[in-house]
Amino acid sequence: MNALGRHVLAEVYGCNRSILDDTVKVQQVMVNAALKAGADVREVAFHKFHPQGVSGVVVISESHVAVHTWPEYGYAAVDVFTCGTRVDPWDVMSSILRDLEAENYTATETRRGIFQEAGVQAAS
Amino acid sequence: MNALGRHVLAEVYGCNRSILDDTVKVQQVMVNAALKAGADVREVAFHKFHPQGVSGVVVISESHVAVHTWPEYGYAAVDVFTCGTRVDPWDVMSSILRDLEAENYTATETRRGIFQEAGVQAAS
Repeated sequence: MNALGRHVLAEVYGCNRSILDDTVKVQQVMVNAALKAGADVREVAFHKFHPQGVSGVVVISESHVAVHTWPEYGYAAVDVFTCGTRVDPWDVMSSILRDLEAENYTATETRRGIFQEAGVQAAS
Repeated sequence: MNALGRHVLAEVYGCNRSILDDTVKVQQVMVNAALKAGADVREVAFHKFHPQGVSGVVVISESHVAVHTWPEYGYAAVDVFTCGTRVDPWDVMSSILRDLEAENYTATETRRGIFQEAGVQAAS
């Protein structure tokens, strides 16, 4: 069986709340994490919510890195999807956890687009 | 317990391959799905790969809709993340499945950012 990609979803708690509410900083954290892990950044789209919170996505050649922040809870929902073998999604995630100054997190990895030789099969 | 959001990941097979390789059409499918389900579209970022494939994300007030296509397999990886109760992620997904002319799919829903009264707890 072959998976096209790996998708890591993380619940990230105890982050630095001022970073979580700063669109420029959140974007820097995400883009830097992608670049340091060897990804090619293709598109960037971030949005600031009022009174608080940031949502944003970095489209990379290898898929995407997305974040949604709730500064009032010190919480961020982060997902890192990479296809191919060149970029490890956990490298991207580790960098994000460090730069958001997270105290703790939970994360799961889902394999995406699994195919078997005889044809197309369900994934996960 | 309270979840901040619902995140549906779908492996979508047997799609119309010419749609999957057309950036404008894929973007239309995603944006229309979000709008029809009642979401507010905030940012849109799509990228065309060569020789084939499209990646894109629609940032919505309620979180995001992302897609990565492999026209050569008739396959798309789609994820719909909505926070709050106003937009049902399955409504967004249903519209995408129909407009990509999918023959079959598998999907899972993950609750994001689950908090308990006594404090912050792990999600799944």
